[in-house]
Amino acid sequence: MEVLDRLCVHTITTKPLGFAEACRAYAERGIRGITIWRDAVGEIPRDEAWDILRHYSLQPVAYCRGGFFPDPDPDRRKLAIEDNVKMIDEAAAVGAPLLVLVCGAHPGQSLETSRTQIREGIETILPAARQAGIRLAIEPLHPMYANDRSAINTMKQANDLTEAIGSPALGVAVDVYHVWWDPALREEILRCGMNGHLFAFHLCDWLTPTSHFLLDRGLMGEGCIDLPQIRSWVEEAGFDGFHEVEIFSERWWAADQEEFLDRIVEAYQQYC
Amino acid sequence: MEVLDRLCVHTITTKPLGFAEACRAYAERGIRGITIWRDAVGEIPRDEAWDILRHYSLQPVAYCRGGFFPDPDPDRRKLAIEDNVKMIDEAAAVGAPLLVLVCGAHPGQSLETSRTQIREGIETILPAARQAGIRLAIEPLHPMYANDRSAINTMKQANDLTEAIGSPALGVAVDVYHVWWDPALREEILRCGMNGHLFAFHLCDWLTPTSHFLLDRGLMGEGCIDLPQIRSWVEEAGFDGFHEVEIFSERWWAADQEEFLDRIVEAYQQYC
Repeated sequence: MEVLDRLCVHTITTKPLGFAEACRAYAERGIRGITIWRDAVGEIPRDEAWDILRHYSLQPVAYCRGGFFPDPDPDRRKLAIEDNVKMIDEAAAVGAPLLVLVCGAHPGQSLETSRTQIREGIETILPAARQAGIRLAIEPLHPMYANDRSAINTMKQANDLTEAIGSPALGVAVDVYHVWWDPALREEILRCGMNGHLFAFHLCDWLTPTSHFLLDRGLMGEGCIDLPQIRSWVEEAGFDGFHEVEIFSERWWAADQEEFLDRIVEAYQQYC
Repeated sequence: MEVLDRLCVHTITTKPLGFAEACRAYAERGIRGITIWRDAVGEIPRDEAWDILRHYSLQPVAYCRGGFFPDPDPDRRKLAIEDNVKMIDEAAAVGAPLLVLVCGAHPGQSLETSRTQIREGIETILPAARQAGIRLAIEPLHPMYANDRSAINTMKQANDLTEAIGSPALGVAVDVYHVWWDPALREEILRCGMNGHLFAFHLCDWLTPTSHFLLDRGLMGEGCIDLPQIRSWVEEAGFDGFHEVEIFSERWWAADQEEFLDRIVEAYQQYC
């Protein structure tokens, strides 16, 4: 199953499965990487989670998801920062080397203000990340989320912000769902990789029509994204990390998750 | 009602109204401009439509909507071009000086191919447009439409394409719904205006949450778009044309259209 060596699945992708169950199901199929969502480990003590991961020889690739910095209320911004620091510790506790940042936005607050607060938030948590040996990845989100989920919406913006802050612990997560449409995509992926900032690569597909803004992502091959092309750009940029499958889909969550995982493995081999 | 001198409404905004009824309702409220959707004039002879417009002293601002060039089938691409030429004649027949282009995309066809076909389509219809004295405006569409409605998704792309083709009859329509999120928006609006390519300015608002990808636009003031800011950039760029209200909304179409028009006039005065 050498071809699966770089396949990683986000626990959110198989949301109905419990953590141990997900680990077992991934390992049984030869999947080697796992990106752990905070909710998936839930109340499980972190050392127990660590033991489960070791038992199944799964490599924690990233922890999801920090960020959500913007808020007009300074007290709530402070709480967000404290929570991010806590997530850095949680990531370290399960052995995940990377915390993914969904940077955030606050409905009605100007994009400029949200972008300033995002930068302040990242700069504030960076020392804690460096101390814990955890890297941070800015994930640019699709422009359709600019008012409520992230005011960082293109690879260029993520690169600009990463370079402006300028820390070896800060980089970018490329998720095909958010960036596939961008005419500057190849150029910005190369810029990101050449500067040593390309920290993660997320896979899924874009469905047409899309029935829900958040929970109707496609399995690779179901949609229109040219996955081999984007993968080739990511590799051209020097990326040799895991290929992380991150699918939010009420349709797939309603399906048998063991069969869904079989389909993920097939789709990864066929379409990526 | 001097403050309404630059207000224009797209007939699609008040879709349930017949053409003559819409003209009467706009004129009664002091609205001076009208952008005519092909379906709105429907079977009405064009000279009759012209008479209705004159009767109500309404100025046709634009005709909607051409484009939709991309298709893997060359015969269907030819049909699209013929239809665009027909629309140029229709625009001229009702006295509308501008044809708005929703450039198109074909699900599953690569963005590169669609973009090439868009350029070919525009170049092919330009002579007919110049001969008829009709200008063409590329309207960049939100990235969420990149696979099915338009592969031109940012102001930068629209500017690049407009400059590459290089005709005085070709410019850009700025619709706040599609571009409000773009970190390069001010820069690209200024570039567009300075080069004499800023042909149209469309208003509505972005709702959070948005319940439907196409038919859930907001009335100005209902959403998050900083309309005065974008208007200030458009004016800084030298634009002095109409402010066109273009709202696709099943919610508003279900309302009393006379009351909706009152709300449009109020919202325009208050939020734009």
